Amino acid sequence: MTEMCALNDLLPKSDANFTALSPLSFLRRAATVYANNDAMIYGDRHYSWRETHDRCTRLGALLKQRGIVRGDVVSVMLPNIPAMYEAHFAIPMTGAVLNAINIRLDIDTVAFILRHSDTKLIICDTEYNSTIEAALATLDNPPPVIFVHDRQESFSAPLAEHDYETLLADQNNAIACTPPQDEWDAIALGYTSGTTGNPKGVVTHHRGAYLNAVSNVLSWGMGFGVRYLWTLPMFHCNGWCFPWTLAAIGGTSICMRKVDAQVILSLIEKHEVSHYCGAPIVHAMIADTIISQGKRFEHKLSGLIAGAAPPASVFEKMATLGIDITHVYGLTEVYGPATVCVKQDAWQEASIEEQVHLNGRQGVNYPMEEDVCVMDPNTMQPVPADGATVGEIMFRGNIVMKGYLNNPTATAEAFHGGWFHSGDLGVCHPDGYLKIVDRSKDIIISGGENISSLEVEEILLRHDDVELTAVVPMPNEKWGEIPVAFVQKKVNSDLTEEQLMTFCRERISHFKAPRKIIFEDIPTTSTGKIQKFPLRQRVAEMS
Amino acid sequence: MTEMCALNDLLPKSDANFTALSPLSFLRRAATVYANNDAMIYGDRHYSWRETHDRCTRLGALLKQRGIVRGDVVSVMLPNIPAMYEAHFAIPMTGAVLNAINIRLDIDTVAFILRHSDTKLIICDTEYNSTIEAALATLDNPPPVIFVHDRQESFSAPLAEHDYETLLADQNNAIACTPPQDEWDAIALGYTSGTTGNPKGVVTHHRGAYLNAVSNVLSWGMGFGVRYLWTLPMFHCNGWCFPWTLAAIGGTSICMRKVDAQVILSLIEKHEVSHYCGAPIVHAMIADTIISQGKRFEHKLSGLIAGAAPPASVFEKMATLGIDITHVYGLTEVYGPATVCVKQDAWQEASIEEQVHLNGRQGVNYPMEEDVCVMDPNTMQPVPADGATVGEIMFRGNIVMKGYLNNPTATAEAFHGGWFHSGDLGVCHPDGYLKIVDRSKDIIISGGENISSLEVEEILLRHDDVELTAVVPMPNEKWGEIPVAFVQKKVNSDLTEEQLMTFCRERISHFKAPRKIIFEDIPTTSTGKIQKFPLRQRVAEMS
Repeated sequence: MTEMCALNDLLPKSDANFTALSPLSFLRRAATVYANNDAMIYGDRHYSWRETHDRCTRLGALLKQRGIVRGDVVSVMLPNIPAMYEAHFAIPMTGAVLNAINIRLDIDTVAFILRHSDTKLIICDTEYNSTIEAALATLDNPPPVIFVHDRQESFSAPLAEHDYETLLADQNNAIACTPPQDEWDAIALGYTSGTTGNPKGVVTHHRGAYLNAVSNVLSWGMGFGVRYLWTLPMFHCNGWCFPWTLAAIGGTSICMRKVDAQVILSLIEKHEVSHYCGAPIVHAMIADTIISQGKRFEHKLSGLIAGAAPPASVFEKMATLGIDITHVYGLTEVYGPATVCVKQDAWQEASIEEQVHLNGRQGVNYPMEEDVCVMDPNTMQPVPADGATVGEIMFRGNIVMKGYLNNPTATAEAFHGGWFHSGDLGVCHPDGYLKIVDRSKDIIISGGENISSLEVEEILLRHDDVELTAVVPMPNEKWGEIPVAFVQKKVNSDLTEEQLMTFCRERISHFKAPRKIIFEDIPTTSTGKIQKFPLRQRVAEMS
Repeated sequence: MTEMCALNDLLPKSDANFTALSPLSFLRRAATVYANNDAMIYGDRHYSWRETHDRCTRLGALLKQRGIVRGDVVSVMLPNIPAMYEAHFAIPMTGAVLNAINIRLDIDTVAFILRHSDTKLIICDTEYNSTIEAALATLDNPPPVIFVHDRQESFSAPLAEHDYETLLADQNNAIACTPPQDEWDAIALGYTSGTTGNPKGVVTHHRGAYLNAVSNVLSWGMGFGVRYLWTLPMFHCNGWCFPWTLAAIGGTSICMRKVDAQVILSLIEKHEVSHYCGAPIVHAMIADTIISQGKRFEHKLSGLIAGAAPPASVFEKMATLGIDITHVYGLTEVYGPATVCVKQDAWQEASIEEQVHLNGRQGVNYPMEEDVCVMDPNTMQPVPADGATVGEIMFRGNIVMKGYLNNPTATAEAFHGGWFHSGDLGVCHPDGYLKIVDRSKDIIISGGENISSLEVEEILLRHDDVELTAVVPMPNEKWGEIPVAFVQKKVNSDLTEEQLMTFCRERISHFKAPRKIIFEDIPTTSTGKIQKFPLRQRVAEMS
């Protein structure tokens, strides 16, 4: 159709001017540029970027010797320790795909994932020996396991021939830390912790990992000398791509096995941590511990918050403490965070309440994510930016998964119409910022009116005695559904159902207020999300 | 060879998960996220990001109406005013290629460029009317011109039907600010100001422009609220990709028609400029003016310096003034800066002299440039990192040009062996930092010994009375060549040849010291580089 064009068609790609985009390039550069800077700190162990590069390239050689080749899946079950960081580079370096399994999963789910992913090798911390061994026992051809024995802990030691550090120390070969031929090659596999059915395997690629790693830098305005505390599990969307971000900027990973408030505080002080990420509960814990201990950090500390709308109390406490909090939103399918609530200068003049509202929105597309849009899934047209019309949040661009592994139906559905369908319902505000109003399945329809369970939950959370809450629909002959609230009270609270109902009705339309409140501890998923499914089931049976 | 792999081969690209990388995406996002922030300031004119996006999309529509299509070249001859910034988005938006012509070029060269590039349309500031009209007079089919009439200046006004602002105001249509289908499509064409022969047309692509725009952010640690002063001409390697960088981070462009010390100072103060770029002479001018006026800026100011090794005096003055200077190096073929002298913490403890030496090196590859290496061009092997063995500086990766327009021989030579050959000679220090020792053609071979003209120049520049210098080879029967120095003295200096020779011989091997010194003003190219070619010619004739 178009004639030959000298500028576009006569100058093809060559080795000189084209390389696959891959976060492996960041590690290779960091090994030179930041050679002697700390890449990882874990307890008394410090690894420079040169050492980290060296360990990763030797681990890569070890994996190749074990027969790992391009397209194989290597699964890991590791906490946020150096071996986990190394897995993010060494496994892709061989051409294989990193599958980081949530350490809190049950045996059956782990077994399902190992089978479904056709895992060829496992790297596992000995803390999870019993889970992994029980899961392996269910497999016909269980893959071999390399065990990581954390000498700082009292977990059992493996045989030397299976011991990560011994094998690494004995490994004299190294492989090159270079990108794959094709940037579309898979880099990671991550199973979504759906509330029903079997988890789906989200496949991501080198190009997307590279771009989101950099997009993190832009969206957070990260400069030099970053000291990042690993409060966010690396098995959660590959730590939102931050292992690769830190290589891109030569930042330091402060590793941490468990999320413990006192440990976090002492690491922040000791290492002058500049950045950390986490769910609201992590931020709340940090804020409360700082306040209860009367601490104040001299250095600048910034946090990314995601996983649920950040409660007002967290924003207020962090503001008081001088800790800078930025709200992001995403899913495994979009490599972790894919929207960010970019702070506008003008917001500084708003009331705290208004600021909480503004910052509580999911915001705009991440700098290098092409598009996010609230759309009518039937017409595939954007909803009006009126802050009221509900649509489905959809993404499009280079930081969207390749698809679900061996699940063409789910992939096709997810990509219907050329957009990734998040399954989350939202509105678009006049300033272009989007706000989640509900997860698709969490809408409660009562008397023909839509009730956002999230909205009701937010009201409940404003009560000082409410720790956690989940609002679910109870089938009802008259209304179709009515909202029922599960509430986990703070320790020592003597709050009654009647008091809390009154509190709600004073703040929300009566039809939205819960008709029944059940006080009990609330189940959460391994990534801190509230598990509504069992609650929903119980309520359905109650009606 | 390899069998089908579910992870790599069964999940193809789709509209949902693949978009061409293009800096146009940054403008589209900025129009939403930074809608009301200043994108451009020029005198009294302020344009928000929404307005800038609007102007660019309407300019794009205007160009399309004029018949501009994918692969066409649109040439511009503009200073650093808003129209120039807009050209960086509006022209690529149509699928066309931006060719920014150096405003200081002579008529013959401009005519050559217009012919060679097959320019379809020109956008020209009326300050350069006489040049462009004389150049057009030499063409068989001169393309049409849209004239930009700067109302802040007294240059002649064009007819309304050719007037940029009038045409833009009358334009009601807009085109979409979306990436091309193929990220390998050309985005810009830039003619290198070679010292001999016809200039070569360097073709760059959307992918590279996108990546280098972001690479600037990483290499400079740019955060939020950037206010960038346009001391660097945008016609120089597309302003090192900074027009696109600023869209990626929502920074503000402070435009400026001419580089004038007093104007620069007042703009820095008025707009609290945070970042600027330039050749050493720009930095020297800024430093000297600040010092002579006894100024001190309250806010943080950072400068990128490139084009020549930064003189010690500039580093020292900037350090005293609290202005942060970073040394970068590159060429048009690598989209502007492609190496950066990343500052190491340990350097802070070094003496000022040592710091000048360390920071005077060209450094390491830019964060998103795959590789830079000092190589033996015969063996294509890296030279030892001993700080002594000279090789050619070569680049490889995604931020290397597509090639030279209609010049397959030059392109093949430049990419020989899978690397881009810069033509600059350098050494690699043990810490992996490279240092230019000479431009390929500037080596002087005397009695079988290689003399770096740069090294001699650096010695001469240490003398307080030396403003500029160029050392060139003079043919000599006995020695082959001998070094001759052209020296531009500072105003009112009474420095003699003998004094300066003594000064040199005290600091450098005798064979390297210039055998002859010629005091006179030194010619520079339009981009501030010293033009050695005419000097070399004159000296050749003298011998």
